[in-house]
Amino acid sequence: MKDKISIVGAGLVGSLLAVILKKKGFQVQIFEKRSDPRKSNVDAGRSINLALSHRGIRPLKLAGVFESIEPYLIPMNGRMMHDESGNLTFQPYGKEGQFINSVSRAQLNQLLVESAEEAGVEVLFDHKCIDVDFDENIIEFENGSKVASDLIIGTDGAFSAIRKKLQFTDRFNFSQHYIEHGYKELCIEPNNNDFGLEPNYLHIWPRGNFMLIALPNNDKTFTCTLFFPFEGSPSFESLSSKTDVDSFFEKYFKDAKELMPDIAEQFFSNPTSSLITTKCEPWHKNRSILLGDAAHAIVPFYGQGMNSGFEDVRIFIEMSEELNWNWDEILPKYSAERKKDADAISELALHNFIEMRDHVGDPTFLKRKKLEAQIQEKYPKEWIPLYSMVTFSDLPYSEALRLGKIQKRVMDEFLSTDDQNIDFQKIIDRFNTLKKGG
Amino acid sequence: MKDKISIVGAGLVGSLLAVILKKKGFQVQIFEKRSDPRKSNVDAGRSINLALSHRGIRPLKLAGVFESIEPYLIPMNGRMMHDESGNLTFQPYGKEGQFINSVSRAQLNQLLVESAEEAGVEVLFDHKCIDVDFDENIIEFENGSKVASDLIIGTDGAFSAIRKKLQFTDRFNFSQHYIEHGYKELCIEPNNNDFGLEPNYLHIWPRGNFMLIALPNNDKTFTCTLFFPFEGSPSFESLSSKTDVDSFFEKYFKDAKELMPDIAEQFFSNPTSSLITTKCEPWHKNRSILLGDAAHAIVPFYGQGMNSGFEDVRIFIEMSEELNWNWDEILPKYSAERKKDADAISELALHNFIEMRDHVGDPTFLKRKKLEAQIQEKYPKEWIPLYSMVTFSDLPYSEALRLGKIQKRVMDEFLSTDDQNIDFQKIIDRFNTLKKGG
Repeated sequence: MKDKISIVGAGLVGSLLAVILKKKGFQVQIFEKRSDPRKSNVDAGRSINLALSHRGIRPLKLAGVFESIEPYLIPMNGRMMHDESGNLTFQPYGKEGQFINSVSRAQLNQLLVESAEEAGVEVLFDHKCIDVDFDENIIEFENGSKVASDLIIGTDGAFSAIRKKLQFTDRFNFSQHYIEHGYKELCIEPNNNDFGLEPNYLHIWPRGNFMLIALPNNDKTFTCTLFFPFEGSPSFESLSSKTDVDSFFEKYFKDAKELMPDIAEQFFSNPTSSLITTKCEPWHKNRSILLGDAAHAIVPFYGQGMNSGFEDVRIFIEMSEELNWNWDEILPKYSAERKKDADAISELALHNFIEMRDHVGDPTFLKRKKLEAQIQEKYPKEWIPLYSMVTFSDLPYSEALRLGKIQKRVMDEFLSTDDQNIDFQKIIDRFNTLKKGG
Repeated sequence: MKDKISIVGAGLVGSLLAVILKKKGFQVQIFEKRSDPRKSNVDAGRSINLALSHRGIRPLKLAGVFESIEPYLIPMNGRMMHDESGNLTFQPYGKEGQFINSVSRAQLNQLLVESAEEAGVEVLFDHKCIDVDFDENIIEFENGSKVASDLIIGTDGAFSAIRKKLQFTDRFNFSQHYIEHGYKELCIEPNNNDFGLEPNYLHIWPRGNFMLIALPNNDKTFTCTLFFPFEGSPSFESLSSKTDVDSFFEKYFKDAKELMPDIAEQFFSNPTSSLITTKCEPWHKNRSILLGDAAHAIVPFYGQGMNSGFEDVRIFIEMSEELNWNWDEILPKYSAERKKDADAISELALHNFIEMRDHVGDPTFLKRKKLEAQIQEKYPKEWIPLYSMVTFSDLPYSEALRLGKIQKRVMDEFLSTDDQNIDFQKIIDRFNTLKKGG
C-alpha cells in the first residue's frame, strides 16, 4: 500500500498536487476549511483573474489537465498602456507568438478540484485545521476529527494554518511584510455585448505612485484592479466621498471611467485589501512541508504567484521521483534548494510594481527597452530579457534575477552611448564576461 | 479617577513600568502567566545574569528603585580575554571609572515585582493571556477571566502573547529570525570559598566561530555561557559523548575546564537554547502597545536587551508626560519614533557577536582599537567610541550606529598610514565632515 498523504488547502496548488500524487498511486486526501463552492452560494459577481504562463502551464500538462483548462484562457499578447489623455501604447510581452493567459481563479480552482475528484482524491470541505502534531504527523480539525498521515503538505495559502503552527516551533524563521499600497477590484461591464476594451491585452494605466490594471474575462467583462496607497494624497484614505472618487477617476483614468459609470458605487461597496509578502525557512519539519503561497506569498506584480506555486509542484514531484519518494530525503532537499528561487521571485515581484506603475511611461525606461530590443535582435539566444526569462522559460528564478541584474548593469554602462555608435559585440562580450562571474 | 492600565508580563520591563505608572497615580495591574516565584519552587541552581549599564540605570532611578538594587550589582570594568594557552588580556569598557554591572535576572526581577507591589500595583500571577480584543481593550485569560482597561501594555517578552495576536491583524509587519548559533549555560563553582576567576570582569574566550563568556554572581559562582553553532564541526550536534565534551573543552577552554571538573555532566544536563531576533511594526493598535522584548527581541551580544527595554520605559514615560497622558497621541508617536532605535540596537547586537567571538583577538582589530584610543585621547569630546556611545550614553541607538559607521570608515581610510605620520587633526576633520552628512 502506498503512503497516505494529507494535503491541507484545496486551492490551486493543493488540488493540482493532489491530481499528480493520486495518479502516481498514493492515497490522497485534501482538507479544505471552506465549504464546497459548488454547494454554497458564492457571490458570482466577483471575479478575480490571474495570468497563467509557461511555468504554470508545464505542471498542468504534467498532471494531464491542461487540455480541459485551455478553453477558459484568454491570451494577452502584451501590455496596453493608457496615458491620461487616453492614448494607447502597446508593449509586447515577448517574441511573436508569446503571450500570457487571463484566467478566472474560481473557474480554474473548480476545474482542478474536479480533476482531483475524478482522479480519485477525496476532497473534504469544512475541515479547518487547528493543530498539527509534527512528531506524530497528526492534523487536528475544528470539527473534532484527527487525521494521521505519512506526509502532510500545507498548501493553505498566505495565511497558512500549517505555517502558523510551524512558526511556534524552535528555530523557524518567518517574516510577513505589507507594502504601503492596497488594492480594490472594480468591474468593467460588457459594452453592447462585447468587451469594453481590446481583450487580448493586459491594460495598464500607470500613474507614478499608483496604477490601474484590467484583465479580460470570458463573460466579456474586465476585472480592474486599482493599486493605491492606503495613506497620503491621493490614497484610499483621502477619497472619502463619491464626489472624491468621481473626480479622481475623471482626472487620472478618464477612459476607464467612461466604461464604469457606477465607479463611485463600486468603489465604496467593494473591499480594500492589503498586499503581503511572507518568507519562512525551513519549509519542512519532519514529515510536513509547505508549498505555494503557504511557503512564499508574494505581491502580484510579476503575475507569478500561481505560476511559482505550480512550478513548486513540478519541482517537488520531479525531485520526489528522483529520490524514489523517500520523504525523509526529499523534504530537506526541496526546502533547501527551492528557497532561493522563491526569494528571487519575491524580490522581482516587489520590484516590478515600481516598473509597472512608474517606469513604463518613463523616457529612460523606454530608451533601455529599445536598446534591449536591439541587443536581443542581434543576439536572440544569448540575451533573453528578464521578463521573458521569468515568464517564458524554466530558468530558476534566482538565475533569472542574477542575469537580469547583470543585464541592467551592462545597459547602464552603454546607455549613454550615441545610438549610431553602439558596439553590440562589446555589449554581449561584457554581458558574457559578467555572466561567468568575471 | 485616573486611567486603568493593564500590563501583560511581570518581567523586568513590565514591573519597572508598573512602579512608575502607579507612582504617577494610575490604576495599574500586572498579569503574569507564570506562578509567583516566591511561592513555587524555582530551580535555585540556575542563575542567568545580565549586564546592567547606563541606559538601564537611569529609568531605575526615575522609578526610585535603584538604591535597593545597587547592593546586588557586581561591577565589571572591562573584558578579560582568555587565549588558548590561558594568557589573559584586559580591555577596559570605557574611561577610568566606567563599568557595567553583572546582576542576576531572578534577583532583579523579584526586587522590581516587590517594588511594584509596595507601590500598590496588583500583580496577578497564573494569568495567561489567550486573547485580546483590540477594539474593546479587553484581555482574556486562560483561567476564564476578562479584563477591560483604558490602556493595555504588552511587556511579555520575545514570545509575547499580545504580539502574537497583533500578528494576525491586517498590515502588521513581523519577522522572527534565529541565528545559526545556540547557547548553553554552565557554572563555575566558588574555589576555596572565593571567586574562581577575577570577579570584576566579563571573561571572554573568543574562538573564531564560537566563544565562551563568564559573568560573576553574588554567591561567588560564575555563570558561563557557551555560544556555539547548532550544526557543523565543532557544534552542539558534533559533541555527542562526554569524551567529546571533555576533549573539546581541554582543547579550547583549558583554563575554564579546570574550574569546571563536572563540565561533561553539566553539558548534557543543561538545555541548549536558541537565539532569536524579532522585529515588528507598528508596536501599537488602538489602545494597546508593546514595550521591551515583546516589541524588539535582540541577541544578547551587546548586553543591551534589558537596558534597551528599560530605556523604552523612560522614553515612553517622558513622551507620555509631554503629551499629557493622551494615549491616542502617545502610542502612534512612541511606536513611530522609537522603532529606528530598536532596529539599530538589533543590528549592533548581531554585529557584536562577530566582534566578540572573532575580532577581539585579531591584529587588525587591535590596531584599530589602538588608533581609536589615540584619537579619543586627543579629542575626548568629539570622538566617543561606539561601545561607549551604546553603553555609557543616552544618545539614540540609531545615532550611535550612524556615527559608529562613520568612525569605522574614517579609521579604514587612515589605518594604512604609518604610526609616526598619523595626522589626528585630519582624522577628526574628516569625521566631523562626514558626521554633518558631508
